[in-house]
Amino acid sequence: MTTHPVPVNLVDKFAQFSDLWSQKTIARLNDYEVKLAKMKGEFIWHTHDDTDELFLVVRGRLTLQLRDGDVVLGPGELFVVPQGVEHCPVADEETDVLLLEPTGTPNTGDAGGPRTKAPEPLA
Amino acid sequence: MTTHPVPVNLVDKFAQFSDLWSQKTIARLNDYEVKLAKMKGEFIWHTHDDTDELFLVVRGRLTLQLRDGDVVLGPGELFVVPQGVEHCPVADEETDVLLLEPTGTPNTGDAGGPRTKAPEPLA
Repeated sequence: MTTHPVPVNLVDKFAQFSDLWSQKTIARLNDYEVKLAKMKGEFIWHTHDDTDELFLVVRGRLTLQLRDGDVVLGPGELFVVPQGVEHCPVADEETDVLLLEPTGTPNTGDAGGPRTKAPEPLA
Repeated sequence: MTTHPVPVNLVDKFAQFSDLWSQKTIARLNDYEVKLAKMKGEFIWHTHDDTDELFLVVRGRLTLQLRDGDVVLGPGELFVVPQGVEHCPVADEETDVLLLEPTGTPNTGDAGGPRTKAPEPLA
């Protein structure tokens, strides 16, 4: 049986889950993962020593706190946090975010701790 | 002087150019490029032997013709063409597409020919 290739609809995928700060893998690109996350409130300050990290806001508003200042992203806006740059995401309202980074990148970077969580596949 | 980090607004970036099938680099993620392209009409059949390629439609409608069938993408829909899979993009209307693939991936893959064009940086 051949599986017909189907597109990934971001709105549909975000509708499939509701837990916050839990990354869901929706596609793979070589050794990278495309992941979705719902963010509300403040995450933790952390750094990815080995990789850049791309954030694209689909709905809501995300502030990426950096030590140099805040980057505020609305829908259709993206930002790449460079490797080694400390950051802390925060969102006043529930915000839908697409993330892109190498497979195996820990969500809490170098910080670790109780909010560390591996991504889950989303059907 | 410190340059304050700023978000990349996709709608604003697409408004900065009008040429079709010309990839514009808007961000880098490690050794990958985030590129924008306006597509209308049919491109050429080609294959990327060394990499997957991600297409995300921001505006319009893109058909990715594959030998196994078509994948039709509307706004907010993405598809990853796997490494080695022949494809040919086609769009009836002018369509704004975000592309993600390793830096140096030729737009015409293995096919080459007159439509081969390196990406240009977009200010």
